[in-house]
Amino acid sequence: MTMPHESLYERHRPVFERAQQACETRECWSPYPEMPDKYPDAPQAKAAGLQAFEAHRASGRYALDLPGVTGWVGEEVSPYTQQPLGIVYPQCDVDTLFAAAEKSMAGWAEAAIETRMGVLMQVLDTLYREHLFEIVHAVMHTAGQSYNMAYAGSGVNALDRGIEALVYAEQALRSVTPHARWQRRFGSAEIALEKTYRLVPRGVAVCFSCASFPTWNAWPSMMASLATGNPVIVKPHPATVLPMAITVRAFRHALQAAGFDPNLVTMALDTVADPIGKVLVKHPKTAIVDFTGSVRFGQWVEQNAHPAVCYTETAGCNTVVLESAPDLDAALRSLATTLCMFSAQMCTSPQNIYVPREGVDTPQGRVPFEEVARRLADAVQALTTEPKKAAMILAAIQSPQTLALLQQLQEDGARCGQVLLAPAAYPHPEFPQARTRTPLMLQVTTADRALYAQERFGPVSFVIACQDADDALAQATQDARTEGGLTAFLYSTREDYIARAEAAYARAGAQLTINLTGPMPLNFAAAYSDYHVTGLNPAGNATLTNLAFVAGRFGVVQSRRPITAGACS
Amino acid sequence: MTMPHESLYERHRPVFERAQQACETRECWSPYPEMPDKYPDAPQAKAAGLQAFEAHRASGRYALDLPGVTGWVGEEVSPYTQQPLGIVYPQCDVDTLFAAAEKSMAGWAEAAIETRMGVLMQVLDTLYREHLFEIVHAVMHTAGQSYNMAYAGSGVNALDRGIEALVYAEQALRSVTPHARWQRRFGSAEIALEKTYRLVPRGVAVCFSCASFPTWNAWPSMMASLATGNPVIVKPHPATVLPMAITVRAFRHALQAAGFDPNLVTMALDTVADPIGKVLVKHPKTAIVDFTGSVRFGQWVEQNAHPAVCYTETAGCNTVVLESAPDLDAALRSLATTLCMFSAQMCTSPQNIYVPREGVDTPQGRVPFEEVARRLADAVQALTTEPKKAAMILAAIQSPQTLALLQQLQEDGARCGQVLLAPAAYPHPEFPQARTRTPLMLQVTTADRALYAQERFGPVSFVIACQDADDALAQATQDARTEGGLTAFLYSTREDYIARAEAAYARAGAQLTINLTGPMPLNFAAAYSDYHVTGLNPAGNATLTNLAFVAGRFGVVQSRRPITAGACS
Repeated sequence: MTMPHESLYERHRPVFERAQQACETRECWSPYPEMPDKYPDAPQAKAAGLQAFEAHRASGRYALDLPGVTGWVGEEVSPYTQQPLGIVYPQCDVDTLFAAAEKSMAGWAEAAIETRMGVLMQVLDTLYREHLFEIVHAVMHTAGQSYNMAYAGSGVNALDRGIEALVYAEQALRSVTPHARWQRRFGSAEIALEKTYRLVPRGVAVCFSCASFPTWNAWPSMMASLATGNPVIVKPHPATVLPMAITVRAFRHALQAAGFDPNLVTMALDTVADPIGKVLVKHPKTAIVDFTGSVRFGQWVEQNAHPAVCYTETAGCNTVVLESAPDLDAALRSLATTLCMFSAQMCTSPQNIYVPREGVDTPQGRVPFEEVARRLADAVQALTTEPKKAAMILAAIQSPQTLALLQQLQEDGARCGQVLLAPAAYPHPEFPQARTRTPLMLQVTTADRALYAQERFGPVSFVIACQDADDALAQATQDARTEGGLTAFLYSTREDYIARAEAAYARAGAQLTINLTGPMPLNFAAAYSDYHVTGLNPAGNATLTNLAFVAGRFGVVQSRRPITAGACS
Repeated sequence: MTMPHESLYERHRPVFERAQQACETRECWSPYPEMPDKYPDAPQAKAAGLQAFEAHRASGRYALDLPGVTGWVGEEVSPYTQQPLGIVYPQCDVDTLFAAAEKSMAGWAEAAIETRMGVLMQVLDTLYREHLFEIVHAVMHTAGQSYNMAYAGSGVNALDRGIEALVYAEQALRSVTPHARWQRRFGSAEIALEKTYRLVPRGVAVCFSCASFPTWNAWPSMMASLATGNPVIVKPHPATVLPMAITVRAFRHALQAAGFDPNLVTMALDTVADPIGKVLVKHPKTAIVDFTGSVRFGQWVEQNAHPAVCYTETAGCNTVVLESAPDLDAALRSLATTLCMFSAQMCTSPQNIYVPREGVDTPQGRVPFEEVARRLADAVQALTTEPKKAAMILAAIQSPQTLALLQQLQEDGARCGQVLLAPAAYPHPEFPQARTRTPLMLQVTTADRALYAQERFGPVSFVIACQDADDALAQATQDARTEGGLTAFLYSTREDYIARAEAAYARAGAQLTINLTGPMPLNFAAAYSDYHVTGLNPAGNATLTNLAFVAGRFGVVQSRRPITAGACS
């Protein structure tokens, strides 16, 4: 069995070593083409992917040879057709899943680091070569992402994040020498010990994936757990199962092909009516929890995961500070794009836009607050009026609950502030039944803090009048600190102000983008380069990837014994 | 201010780099002499240390210029004299301590890694050069350790653990590049960003030190937090304050001398009657908790520390499996020594000794269970009958509660098993009033599991008759898995059995020592070589030191901004 594993590692070694280098320099790199059209033999691959997706729908039953199947469930509804996907998946007895996962560990935990790395690189490669466009359609018709975002954000970028997790896992594992010879005098005797250090996986990992962006968080989490020897039970959001079912099947096939127990990766499914999240977190065999999802359940997970270790991404109350700009229109265009991108259903989407009530300084003079708000709303509207353009950028709304939230917030906002933009369905050119909404934008003051000082998931933003630039920064960083913020965006021409903002956001633990304009989406997070959640505010601690994200997933257990007399020097 | 810091780092660089090498190879190394007599100018240093200790007692007030002092408390009683030490220490308003700690962070967090490393190496060096024998007496007269153990285990070994923590902290910090240049095409535009990655400390760390072994855990914990930029509030056990007060003063002096805020290290004191542990753990500013202490409070800490990260060492239900031995007497002598060492008041002391009821195989034939138990008890007794020898190995009993526990267990043991050795005070040759007890040894069966399946802190051990060798291993590893075990000890001549034991203890997460005899104490844990708690069972997760012990103490926060047009290539 050794040969094929070694050859798997050797096959992927050039990419892995290039990825190690990228993680060190944090420069721009990816082994994958960023755009679907640049995928090898794109037309054929795209057609095959669509066909695979359609075959799942036609079959109606997603076959997964999981242990302990007790029934079949599936309640996915496509945001693009608002019709059920019509696919059911095996639902398994939870205790059977844990027992099978635990049983699967032994051979995997004892395999050489290279062996595990080779198999896992092979999984990522298989997902890329055989399932990428199948996953694109699966993500579109569950999460509601656009084709291009599903390809990039849920496809190749997620694969990159997976490789990145392997790089850091390998770094943490390699920091422990496997053997040592230790020799010292005690009194008149010389004691020589040989020591063996075993890297022991913590145990069964439960990986919760979310409804709107399943793979981008789950793949690196799964890689981090598996690379360090742990089995993974995937718990997809019941609204977005298919991308993870494809994932689980690909992992199981690759593991089995390499001679390992496929139950290293299984899936625990529930329904909205009958959730099993708490059962999984509190299961006595749960040793690791990766969670991406709602603030409410995420906080419960963080407080209740012990004795399991826990890596989370929950709230994203992300902020913008608009103080001054050399080209205000360029800044507003970039902000507008980011507010529209996937209808702001990203953990990195900005929500609270703080502007001094005196206005924003520009080379053309100070632009009053109301005009800034108006022009930003106009920029958003300009992106959403033409349906084809709107479809590409807004895509669809994942959950019907988001529509209810928008309506509620529009009413609340009209009462205490001003509605800059009211949300409306736009006609999707390809899917006339798509669940769509243009963004809701509200103009408020800091007196309305109750309205915006929490994550309002979906296409809603607040333009907030502040006392002055210092107040804007204080308010914005307070949001990150107290409500949890992943990203932050700043426009300023004053270097002293920028320096203060960098320091303040560093303390608040939010990743800051400064004065970025042009075609790069403001909240684009590049694998191997941009760190994710910082662990420094309530948004969670899944940094994707640093040493802290991997080092707690295994322990070091040693054994030591005397070296026989003859071997002593 | 840059010069002196750089020169501090340069001064300690040779030792630091040698320590890095030792952590990589895990070979035997220390910059310090292991025995007090080998300390430079030992007679003078020993006298000065005693004098310093006596001066604290004579003064009665331990001066520490802490913020928010509200009163003076101190209730230490020397285990050697059973008289109060008569020293009071400043007690501070908790909120004032946290505010001062938080305020102290800024300059320290922004200092270069070399600067922090240099200052912290200087602290360790100062503790070694100026306070070592003062700490020896402070540890003796609070924890009850012997002179030699206080020198080694609470002195130089603890310093080594501190350096080791710095090595791993540096490794984790260095794994993040401070700057990157990132460039990519988006459509027709080339975007070039400069990225800055800040290593941001999590915030205020609370470090609980325990009554019996304060410095060995606290120093590396403090180093791990401080090296990664966090201030530390030390919370000593009220019975053992002086060693930590000396520590806190040394840190504060060194920090201040290097131009930093001394409030980076402060002390929060309580009394047995009015504990503040929970207040500290649940304080809104607490970001890190290091805890060494009782199982009961430790479990509360683990369950309630969130959102703080938490590193613990709690239970140590440590086990021995005695299956076969080429030299049974040598094995029993080593076990006896370890059962006596500091009256088994060490987290690594064995407690549960599993022996097949059929007996133990030796070259001279099978030795019946009862004879093994008897000979082990005789070996313990042989170490404890001569007062001078007993004093060196047993030292004193830290807490009066331990005496009550011994009495209770002796009664319980007599009821369900057999008392192999009854505890008795022995006359300490130097301190006639010393609180001393020879070990309690009970012979029981696995039916008496309720009696021994938990940590019984103090000089008590159980020789447990098992069905056979397999049962012995199963019972022993179950203790570690379910009750928490740090160490384990195995005697066997069968390589297949040894291999199974290594695998079983690895899964149970206990550090295993195999077939060790001779003058090295079985539970001696060498810095730079032996890992401590594994995180794989309820004994805690303070591995002292690996990457997991340091990597969660800081976050990575980035800022990124476009490189101005001229700089783009």
